[in-house]
Amino acid sequence: MVSKQEIQSKIRQTVEMVRRTNPIAGSITNSVTINFVANAQLAVGGSAAMVYLPDEAEFLAKAGGAMYVNMGTLLPIYEETLPYAAKVLHETGKPWVLDPVAVGIGSLRTQILQQFKEYKPTIIRGNASEIIALAGLWGLDGGTDESNVRGVDSTDSVSAAKTAAIALAKWTGGAVAVSGETDLITDGSIMAVSYGGSHFMEKITGAGCSLGGVVAVYATATSPFIAALTASALYNLAGKRAELKVDGPGSFQVQFLDELYKAKAEEIAGNSFDMEEV
Amino acid sequence: MVSKQEIQSKIRQTVEMVRRTNPIAGSITNSVTINFVANAQLAVGGSAAMVYLPDEAEFLAKAGGAMYVNMGTLLPIYEETLPYAAKVLHETGKPWVLDPVAVGIGSLRTQILQQFKEYKPTIIRGNASEIIALAGLWGLDGGTDESNVRGVDSTDSVSAAKTAAIALAKWTGGAVAVSGETDLITDGSIMAVSYGGSHFMEKITGAGCSLGGVVAVYATATSPFIAALTASALYNLAGKRAELKVDGPGSFQVQFLDELYKAKAEEIAGNSFDMEEV
Amino acid sequence: MVSKQEIQSKIRQTVEMVRRTNPIAGSITNSVTINFVANAQLAVGGSAAMVYLPDEAEFLAKAGGAMYVNMGTLLPIYEETLPYAAKVLHETGKPWVLDPVAVGIGSLRTQILQQFKEYKPTIIRGNASEIIALAGLWGLDGGTDESNVRGVDSTDSVSAAKTAAIALAKWTGGAVAVSGETDLITDGSIMAVSYGGSHFMEKITGAGCSLGGVVAVYATATSPFIAALTASALYNLAGKRAELKVDGPGSFQVQFLDELYKAKAEEIAGNSFDMEEV
Repeated sequence: MVSKQEIQSKIRQTVEMVRRTNPIAGSITNSVTINFVANAQLAVGGSAAMVYLPDEAEFLAKAGGAMYVNMGTLLPIYEETLPYAAKVLHETGKPWVLDPVAVGIGSLRTQILQQFKEYKPTIIRGNASEIIALAGLWGLDGGTDESNVRGVDSTDSVSAAKTAAIALAKWTGGAVAVSGETDLITDGSIMAVSYGGSHFMEKITGAGCSLGGVVAVYATATSPFIAALTASALYNLAGKRAELKVDGPGSFQVQFLDELYKAKAEEIAGNSFDMEEV
Repeated sequence: MVSKQEIQSKIRQTVEMVRRTNPIAGSITNSVTINFVANAQLAVGGSAAMVYLPDEAEFLAKAGGAMYVNMGTLLPIYEETLPYAAKVLHETGKPWVLDPVAVGIGSLRTQILQQFKEYKPTIIRGNASEIIALAGLWGLDGGTDESNVRGVDSTDSVSAAKTAAIALAKWTGGAVAVSGETDLITDGSIMAVSYGGSHFMEKITGAGCSLGGVVAVYATATSPFIAALTASALYNLAGKRAELKVDGPGSFQVQFLDELYKAKAEEIAGNSFDMEEV
Repeated sequence: MVSKQEIQSKIRQTVEMVRRTNPIAGSITNSVTINFVANAQLAVGGSAAMVYLPDEAEFLAKAGGAMYVNMGTLLPIYEETLPYAAKVLHETGKPWVLDPVAVGIGSLRTQILQQFKEYKPTIIRGNASEIIALAGLWGLDGGTDESNVRGVDSTDSVSAAKTAAIALAKWTGGAVAVSGETDLITDGSIMAVSYGGSHFMEKITGAGCSLGGVVAVYATATSPFIAALTASALYNLAGKRAELKVDGPGSFQVQFLDELYKAKAEEIAGNSFDMEEV
């Protein structure tokens, strides 16, 4: 297994490369947290661009270094845009991050997520219930037929999603990040657990979505596993730091963006994590 | 008439029940303030989920404890989604909050608001001009044929909307909240006036919309009248407190979310209000 | 050439008139920064209203004092809404601000921007690459066939867009504002350069969009050139001031809105600028 030192060195390189090159990661994302996603992407040194239409998604998929696809607030046009974008991303080999928000709710979401199976999202990021439900939808190990997704919230623990996460990562050949009190990141052969964060991250919207957007930014510069781990480490660090300085969710959101911006590559790499083979 | 002490006791219970049970109130709402609505719902202890599509609205209407419907930035799909959601909510007896933003502007808005008459929104929240115009559209007392709605702003005083508010509440059998310098809340037989707030609430977007979203959260746990009064009391308290700590609308918005989160049940119940029979 | 003193006097009057009369400037704008645009418009004393549908756009175009049209995140309905709104604005002689975000990306954006040529947007605001690409699309001096627009970012310097800006202003008979490290504003015969701002304005989303929205607010009260210059002066002043008080992009955004609100008319008029004939 690769050593923690090697992983940390890659995290540092990823953070610095992004800050130096300002890579674009386009997004098709929900309207609730679209602003927070973009601002988080900018705060870490990336560039953001959001679209709704099929040909614009194609343009961004080809022009950007990676893409973020969030299933939050589906619009009718997404029936065309999302599978088409996924196809282009898959065919051009561009990394893309899927955030299967609210999987199991609504016929269009189910239909699109089924189509995504063959386009193999490079990184899948979700809460435990979403990861389990997506594995179920795709007929993989660790999934359940019935979704425990509660609106946009999880009712399962992160560790309960371990089998599903590994199965999804093996299917896509990429990485899976399960967000929760601790974050689990796996590429199907190794698994990292990232520690930190804040209870305020459940008291604001967009902690998860913007993490997905930042994973996409890092995916322009490194492997799926390192991208997901780097973003999780940064989020856990920034959440921990922001919490110490605020006493409510409004100021947490503001302080959190500041901490994303200020965190040094060394500090992100040094944020506590464990690794094991799976 | 019920005593102020009884009302205050119910306000306390509502605030505490929501913080304990984290109820979902789904929303179909405008894109300008959708993030602020969700964050306000989370700050008071609720859970948020926003949708655009008919079958997702149906799912949320059935799965959530209440729903918030805001007429702000209409999209074409709303022609299907909104009447369908209202029908489901009405038939399943789920409380829902209607925010008739910009009533009188555009043919789709008028058509949908007319359809809503029979689905009897449990709570109607708006500024004075919107309440008067909606009563007019529905042919009720206190309404006017001609809307004084100016974009999203009111040109009428809260007291001028009293007759319309009572007529609407009698029609729906629920409650009506008129937002302004003081807030008027009525269920058609009693009327409360809630005091406090801040001049900054007119200098930011979303004070009204997010109040509607929070009313929906509280409506999962109590009567329409108490839900509307609890939310108004909290907003007046949080506005007053936030104003003391800031000197501009940007920091007001942040501080206001913090105050929503920090306000104690006792303090919300203790926020100044008057009551009378109507 | 008009003297700097006269210009400064007009800036003062514009700022004060808007704060006194609270004019509505409606917007059709992207979903990423729609909230920031509205809050900026409110912070300077205007009133905001955002729409998607054709007849609502028509209503706002006629009812408001000016309109802001941002090409950011196009939706399918924009194919109808945008040309129709532009036509109504042109025919009624209402000032409108065009923000040609991401010009060159996607077929619908290109088609709509081509249609806009004959409707002559009163003020065009964009970054250097957008201004050059729009001049190219319209076959005017200083334009290039190939767009250097990179997602939503510019790869050209402000001074490189000078010829294109002048050509666009001559074509429309209005004004053009090129945003960058310094801002260039021209009506085709005189040119102002406005100084100030902050490096954080590139680290948040919406600095450009909200500037466009504020230009529209000022355009309800003065000439296109003065409206664009007033808004640019205010943004440069507020950016400079906000930067001194914060250490990250999250708090910059908050502080920036506060500074928009607090800046005195005299201070805005006194913000450093140069003028020359072209």
